[in-house]
Amino acid sequence: MATIAKIDSPWGSQSDREAKRNSKRQAVLDTAVRLFNAKGFQATSLDYVAQALSVTKPTIYHYFSNKDDILFECLRLGMRQIQSAIGEVQQSAATGRDRLEVFAVAYALTMTQEFGMCTIRTSDDQLSAKSRKEFRALKREIHEALQAIIEDGMKDGSLIEGDARLTAFTMAGAINWIGRWYRPDQSMSPDQVAQGVVSNLMTGLVAR
Amino acid sequence: MATIAKIDSPWGSQSDREAKRNSKRQAVLDTAVRLFNAKGFQATSLDYVAQALSVTKPTIYHYFSNKDDILFECLRLGMRQIQSAIGEVQQSAATGRDRLEVFAVAYALTMTQEFGMCTIRTSDDQLSAKSRKEFRALKREIHEALQAIIEDGMKDGSLIEGDARLTAFTMAGAINWIGRWYRPDQSMSPDQVAQGVVSNLMTGLVAR
Repeated sequence: MATIAKIDSPWGSQSDREAKRNSKRQAVLDTAVRLFNAKGFQATSLDYVAQALSVTKPTIYHYFSNKDDILFECLRLGMRQIQSAIGEVQQSAATGRDRLEVFAVAYALTMTQEFGMCTIRTSDDQLSAKSRKEFRALKREIHEALQAIIEDGMKDGSLIEGDARLTAFTMAGAINWIGRWYRPDQSMSPDQVAQGVVSNLMTGLVAR
Repeated sequence: MATIAKIDSPWGSQSDREAKRNSKRQAVLDTAVRLFNAKGFQATSLDYVAQALSVTKPTIYHYFSNKDDILFECLRLGMRQIQSAIGEVQQSAATGRDRLEVFAVAYALTMTQEFGMCTIRTSDDQLSAKSRKEFRALKREIHEALQAIIEDGMKDGSLIEGDARLTAFTMAGAINWIGRWYRPDQSMSPDQVAQGVVSNLMTGLVAR
């Protein structure tokens, strides 16, 4: 079959169009997550998101079917950042303690960023039943991976033996909380916050 | 002035009536907080609360002006439980470390109970602007008291020196998180959870 010679179409190539569509879709998410975190999910209407992007509301419906859909996609992006940090340490042959520290710092850094913050600032019951179920499954996956790393460290002797599930909740709480209190314009950098919280958790507070 | 002899009134005495009113008001709170925690604030209608109490909705309006009012009262009860634990350790002459441990365990116990849970399961933006402001002021008070105890411990040498504000956020996060994950019917008792989380925080995770 003869190949059709490509001309410089005024519509651009299909891959150009896809890239543009994706970058617009991402712009909606970037703006929405910032507003959800600052004003709360309920208080942020899609009109407001559209206004911030200088587009009309129907333009937004071109990319997402409703506000729940947008929130769920924001949450999924936040969770994916945490999951990618798990992927990295799962390949490593380091002790449980070292893997835990690397993962915990990466997780804590995520919580200083908009999509990570969103996972803790939004309460479950603001999602549709279907999205809530998926969101909870993602959270469970992350909890189980964290607990598994802690169990490894308890087995290889690099962490104090104890109840790995309770320890995972202790860590997750302190780390997730960053997304509630940290404001990017504060005096501490994301790195300082992430390292500081994780060092408190690893070393404890009691002077010896 | 002659005293009027009290008869056995079918309406009961004024103090009886007040006690009854208070116990009914408390029953509304006890039921509402349980439903808010289990189903979420938004998903819990006042009709539902009334039904659970076998009364009509107008009966509830006899005690509270709206759902926001009920939620705020639940939050205030939770915060008061935490504050009373602060009061206790503020009187003590023990080291910062010992006072921190006593306070943290009491705080953690509160988070295993319905009113404490409510303070973490409800997001700020579900409150009216006025209630939100008051709720945040209460949270700030607790944070400052926690930070002050930590500063004392860093000064008296019983705690590792560091950033007391960051340490207070680390502790508050791990402790508040209990209210998100703990379910009273689980295998661990409230005491085991509170002691376990606080011991993780005080001692750290790294084996020596």
